[in-house]
Amino acid sequence: MSLDLDAIYRDLHRHPELSFQEHRTAGIVAEALRGLGYTVTEGIGRTGVTGVIERGEGPTVLLRADMDGLPVREATGLDYASTATGVDPDGAEVPVMHACGHDVHVTCLLGAAEALAADASWQGTLVVLFQPAEEWGGGAEAMLADGLYERVPRPDVVLGQHVAPLPAGLVALQPGPAMAGADSLTITMHGTGGHGSRPETTVDPVYLAASTAVRLQGIVSREIAAGDAAVVTVGQLHAGTKNNIIPPEAKLGLSVRTFDEHVRERVLAAIERIARAEAAASAAPREPEFAYEERFPVTVNDRAASARTAAALRTAFGAERVLEPGAVSGSEDVGVLATAADAPLVYWFLGGADPALFGAGLAEGRLPEHLPSNHSPEFAPLPQPTLTVGVAALVTAAKEWLD
Amino acid sequence: MSLDLDAIYRDLHRHPELSFQEHRTAGIVAEALRGLGYTVTEGIGRTGVTGVIERGEGPTVLLRADMDGLPVREATGLDYASTATGVDPDGAEVPVMHACGHDVHVTCLLGAAEALAADASWQGTLVVLFQPAEEWGGGAEAMLADGLYERVPRPDVVLGQHVAPLPAGLVALQPGPAMAGADSLTITMHGTGGHGSRPETTVDPVYLAASTAVRLQGIVSREIAAGDAAVVTVGQLHAGTKNNIIPPEAKLGLSVRTFDEHVRERVLAAIERIARAEAAASAAPREPEFAYEERFPVTVNDRAASARTAAALRTAFGAERVLEPGAVSGSEDVGVLATAADAPLVYWFLGGADPALFGAGLAEGRLPEHLPSNHSPEFAPLPQPTLTVGVAALVTAAKEWLD
Amino acid sequence: MSLDLDAIYRDLHRHPELSFQEHRTAGIVAEALRGLGYTVTEGIGRTGVTGVIERGEGPTVLLRADMDGLPVREATGLDYASTATGVDPDGAEVPVMHACGHDVHVTCLLGAAEALAADASWQGTLVVLFQPAEEWGGGAEAMLADGLYERVPRPDVVLGQHVAPLPAGLVALQPGPAMAGADSLTITMHGTGGHGSRPETTVDPVYLAASTAVRLQGIVSREIAAGDAAVVTVGQLHAGTKNNIIPPEAKLGLSVRTFDEHVRERVLAAIERIARAEAAASAAPREPEFAYEERFPVTVNDRAASARTAAALRTAFGAERVLEPGAVSGSEDVGVLATAADAPLVYWFLGGADPALFGAGLAEGRLPEHLPSNHSPEFAPLPQPTLTVGVAALVTAAKEWLD
Amino acid sequence: MSLDLDAIYRDLHRHPELSFQEHRTAGIVAEALRGLGYTVTEGIGRTGVTGVIERGEGPTVLLRADMDGLPVREATGLDYASTATGVDPDGAEVPVMHACGHDVHVTCLLGAAEALAADASWQGTLVVLFQPAEEWGGGAEAMLADGLYERVPRPDVVLGQHVAPLPAGLVALQPGPAMAGADSLTITMHGTGGHGSRPETTVDPVYLAASTAVRLQGIVSREIAAGDAAVVTVGQLHAGTKNNIIPPEAKLGLSVRTFDEHVRERVLAAIERIARAEAAASAAPREPEFAYEERFPVTVNDRAASARTAAALRTAFGAERVLEPGAVSGSEDVGVLATAADAPLVYWFLGGADPALFGAGLAEGRLPEHLPSNHSPEFAPLPQPTLTVGVAALVTAAKEWLD
Repeated sequence: MSLDLDAIYRDLHRHPELSFQEHRTAGIVAEALRGLGYTVTEGIGRTGVTGVIERGEGPTVLLRADMDGLPVREATGLDYASTATGVDPDGAEVPVMHACGHDVHVTCLLGAAEALAADASWQGTLVVLFQPAEEWGGGAEAMLADGLYERVPRPDVVLGQHVAPLPAGLVALQPGPAMAGADSLTITMHGTGGHGSRPETTVDPVYLAASTAVRLQGIVSREIAAGDAAVVTVGQLHAGTKNNIIPPEAKLGLSVRTFDEHVRERVLAAIERIARAEAAASAAPREPEFAYEERFPVTVNDRAASARTAAALRTAFGAERVLEPGAVSGSEDVGVLATAADAPLVYWFLGGADPALFGAGLAEGRLPEHLPSNHSPEFAPLPQPTLTVGVAALVTAAKEWLD
Repeated sequence: MSLDLDAIYRDLHRHPELSFQEHRTAGIVAEALRGLGYTVTEGIGRTGVTGVIERGEGPTVLLRADMDGLPVREATGLDYASTATGVDPDGAEVPVMHACGHDVHVTCLLGAAEALAADASWQGTLVVLFQPAEEWGGGAEAMLADGLYERVPRPDVVLGQHVAPLPAGLVALQPGPAMAGADSLTITMHGTGGHGSRPETTVDPVYLAASTAVRLQGIVSREIAAGDAAVVTVGQLHAGTKNNIIPPEAKLGLSVRTFDEHVRERVLAAIERIARAEAAASAAPREPEFAYEERFPVTVNDRAASARTAAALRTAFGAERVLEPGAVSGSEDVGVLATAADAPLVYWFLGGADPALFGAGLAEGRLPEHLPSNHSPEFAPLPQPTLTVGVAALVTAAKEWLD
Repeated sequence: MSLDLDAIYRDLHRHPELSFQEHRTAGIVAEALRGLGYTVTEGIGRTGVTGVIERGEGPTVLLRADMDGLPVREATGLDYASTATGVDPDGAEVPVMHACGHDVHVTCLLGAAEALAADASWQGTLVVLFQPAEEWGGGAEAMLADGLYERVPRPDVVLGQHVAPLPAGLVALQPGPAMAGADSLTITMHGTGGHGSRPETTVDPVYLAASTAVRLQGIVSREIAAGDAAVVTVGQLHAGTKNNIIPPEAKLGLSVRTFDEHVRERVLAAIERIARAEAAASAAPREPEFAYEERFPVTVNDRAASARTAAALRTAFGAERVLEPGAVSGSEDVGVLATAADAPLVYWFLGGADPALFGAGLAEGRLPEHLPSNHSPEFAPLPQPTLTVGVAALVTAAKEWLD
Repeated sequence: MSLDLDAIYRDLHRHPELSFQEHRTAGIVAEALRGLGYTVTEGIGRTGVTGVIERGEGPTVLLRADMDGLPVREATGLDYASTATGVDPDGAEVPVMHACGHDVHVTCLLGAAEALAADASWQGTLVVLFQPAEEWGGGAEAMLADGLYERVPRPDVVLGQHVAPLPAGLVALQPGPAMAGADSLTITMHGTGGHGSRPETTVDPVYLAASTAVRLQGIVSREIAAGDAAVVTVGQLHAGTKNNIIPPEAKLGLSVRTFDEHVRERVLAAIERIARAEAAASAAPREPEFAYEERFPVTVNDRAASARTAAALRTAFGAERVLEPGAVSGSEDVGVLATAADAPLVYWFLGGADPALFGAGLAEGRLPEHLPSNHSPEFAPLPQPTLTVGVAALVTAAKEWLD
């Protein structure tokens, strides 16, 4: 009996689920792990799943995958494209897509779980962990809050990977700060509603919100040193119900990335300062409100553990297939699993893009301009060799740490 | 038997219905008219209702009221405030409110219908018309397309009124161009979606749409002469599903008001020019799309008919209670009922605001700064003397034209 | 002996002088008036000139022309184009051009002075007044402050004209409010200077000033009713000395037009509010400063005197050549000469544009789109019939008021 | 006889000269070098000066300082502050200040020239070079074009330093890319001028330029990866001559910093794209013009030569006083002197700020927030120990390379 990873991948891709709603995915995972002989726990942090194999003395290694999809309408044209929908936190029905590749993560970890279960050469404890709700944050925290490390052995090292628009066949591991810290916040800006034909009787919150979204660009362009990295994205802007009504308020949804606490504080303070000032410029009836939502810490790979793992990967794949990519502006909550265990983290990127898209630019570290990135409606990792390499990377890394 | 107008008004206010969904309202209207002896036709233009009384030779006078509410969440605090919801054209459930006072219009016209039915002093034909879907436009057109003037006599004059934030007790009639022409359009701006942390791999449509909303302000401020009037309102801006996803597109919903076809063409051309240029500034993958929705013509009161009607109103109310307010930037589709009949239109405003809110400024033609205007969630006409004056104005005007 | 008005016009056009520097122009005027037999006073309000003829009993009529040019580099391509320069109030040498047509005004008034001196049919007192510094304001005030009405007889009516982009051959007289009130102000916005490569160590006043100039557009587009007229122009924006230095401050020069004191106050308050808020958005080290410079009142033509004068002009030119143009957004200080004398003002526009440029649009009140307006570097009135009609209009109007 | 460096520094600071106008400075330098026994050449590249000492066999070492000041009005309050003025490339008289510390560079190099002339322990050839016009670029190129390396021996290494807002007493040397490449360009945006009261007859270039300056912020904030560094500064914006005239054009002066040719090309293309699109948004009568002015290449320190020099500096000052600062966004043309000689470059920063301003933040690599940076009107290096350390650093580095 052997898992058909390609089929699993296509099935998961076709059936994405939003954060904390990964019931179908969790069920597939749990059933597969039981079939492979793992001791399975379900429902940790609502929809999280773990599988454990204990083989006497030796280190405890945790391999982590995340399971949730995103509210994106798939536009890949794949024959296994998603047409699924889900209900977002506001209660709206939205299209759902594995636009971030968590289906790759789940599939590879199932493949690694199978390979490691079948591999008699190691000793110690293996924990495979399938986490909910990485996208909306809170999934790792939810598993910890739900007693994760009382329910599975506390790991000596936390390992994981994320598929990325690098050429399939490669892995990339950055020691030290590897992924940005992220803050998500929603700004509610208040105006005074009225008739669209009589703006002079209103305070127009659409104009106010648009001005704010424009003025926020100056934070990164004017207030952060060229050598410091920061991203301020307004991912959502919603205002109004009808063209001829000036609504009473507007909402901006922001995602902020930084690599340094000083820069983070500077950016968040600037966001609030600008939003307040724009409200004053519009003579808004009251100050904007700032709701801070999920926060991801900077993802920091332990330098010693990264060196050890990277060496094992280079041995397995050849040095030319193991890159050091620099820090990236994406964010992750995998780090909280390591921090809570006081264990080193090693988290790498798994190439998932068609190598043919990369020309000479790759040698210079340039990505192709037209490569759909994670979260794009056209994000479509190449199933192979991505899945095979992803399984091998997890197995290699895990065995490096198991006795 | 007599209609209790205050009770009818409160009931209608509590139960507003969106455009073309005025089933309950139409039912109440039809039942009342039948009780008053009118020949009633229902379902003209989906939910429109007419009542006719013919009394031999004489002119045909059409009195018109509109029936629909708006997708606004009422915030008046009135004990008869609406908590109703409806389904908007996109299929979303939205709160509904009589934020434009059509409940006043319906109530007054029922009152006038009662008074005129009971009044033996006139001769000719009276048509009372309750129109659907003024807010989303199309209601008057729909009744015409549904054979209105084959189903009721073609009028010799079209009369109607709109409640406005003038002091209750007054009416205001502007000869000539009295209300603006209106165009509603939706602009879809295309970007390239992706991860919120990697804007450089995307074309951010939120920033594009915000920049466009800001740049559109320059049309009225820079491109239209001070002596020409125009309004360009972005009443809706919607983009994005999640803070950390840069979405693939954004939508702006615009309402445009003008009083002159040359100005209108200049404004609409400038909107398209600016949206296209902003897309180019963002290196958008394709041009924005412009969907033109309802269009209201300029509402023009026939000068001779207005003079005759105003004289009658002055006689009834006293000259000091009949204002000439200047053209206003609101819009109406009542004019198409007159144009289709080749009949003069006389359409006036009915004061609905607490006179105590107006100080010395009224003499100078100034409205109080804090008066909630039509379409505001706080729009709350004073029921009395508004209803009584509104009934009297309709009766006075109708009798001026009937023999 | 007769004045060669075409030659005088070309000479004046070729030699424009800035406000309060009209020495050459004033000299030409004074010499010509003396030659015509006027009692001449020079140097009233620095460079103002008056000429008086008294012929016994009868009304006193004041005809006014303004003399100054503008700091504009002429781009008309005329063979009599200006290449003159002058020194502006900041001490900078700037090109100078009669871009507002004051050379037409001076020439026409000299022609009228000649005709009226030669015309034995009238009785009373004629004052011809050549005013300095209309453009920078203050010229009329300066003449009054310098004892104008102790040095020449106080007029019973003040008459004058302004060349405008209407077809040559026409005049246009608007009773009541005819030209806008104007306010000129300079906003100094403070940043913190530094190296262009390190904006994060600065507060960039160029970005601050640009954001403010953009945000100010929202005043006219969002805060003023469609039926009210206002113009907010940023005519100057100056910041910086070198591309790689972020300067410590930026200056915006604004010109504001309104027709109503309430609107004026609302606009000026909004300008200050927005500038302060934008400074706050940039975390500016201190608040902006607002320096209010010249102010022109609304130019109001006395209704009775306008009716009388218009009737005379219609008799002289034919009714079809005397328009009622509506109020215009340009401004004038001629009104203070009338107000100080407690005399009615009648101030009309003189067509100066090639009638061939106007097609059918004129009948609809439309100007040609490509007509260079006053203050444009391409403003070039057609000398004839403009000068002849301008002389005739002044003579006709003056004789209407003289016995 | 000994040079009084503090007096020289104060004198140079009080008498700054603009690029290619460094006649007084060059005269002081030449006279001092002659007094020290150097073979002096003046007027290389207009105002450049070299001094040479040849002592038989051995390497040739070039020490470089730049001499020019900036068009900044000094606001340090120092008793030796500048009140000098100069004439800028546009012919305008402007205040001048040593706001970039080139007076420190000249003084230190004179001190090093004196010490090395008096030091008998070395052999080889020493070239001290005082370059004009670093600020406006072109100074190093001008010296090369004027036959520099035919007039002085071609160096085996080029050494130099720049004072920086680091604590006085420290030096900082970054191997590899150390300073950004810089491009300076001027964008001329065309509108259509006219009267400030009639914007509808114009295309307002002030609004156009302001919109462009705002929209350019999106390049760094949206189009450049967080891990790539770029700066786009609008250091100048000039438009208009009078508040009530809408001018025909506006000029933006930009300074761009990048560390990578791909990023540079992306930024420059985006600037042109945005400016063209904004012109289209305004319906500008023609496309903007882009004038590219000075360009500085990325300043790249030779890694081997940097390691050798840094080791010598650590020996001289102690390792804790020799930092590795990371690349900075400032730019330099010193690199072209090395490139033309095919010699390695070693260029370091010299701390010039009061160490008391730095608290615990220095250990974290944080600069004090309130430290005036280079090009600020308040830039005021502490003369001591800056000058003494600057002389010692040059002497130490030179002797490391001389035999």
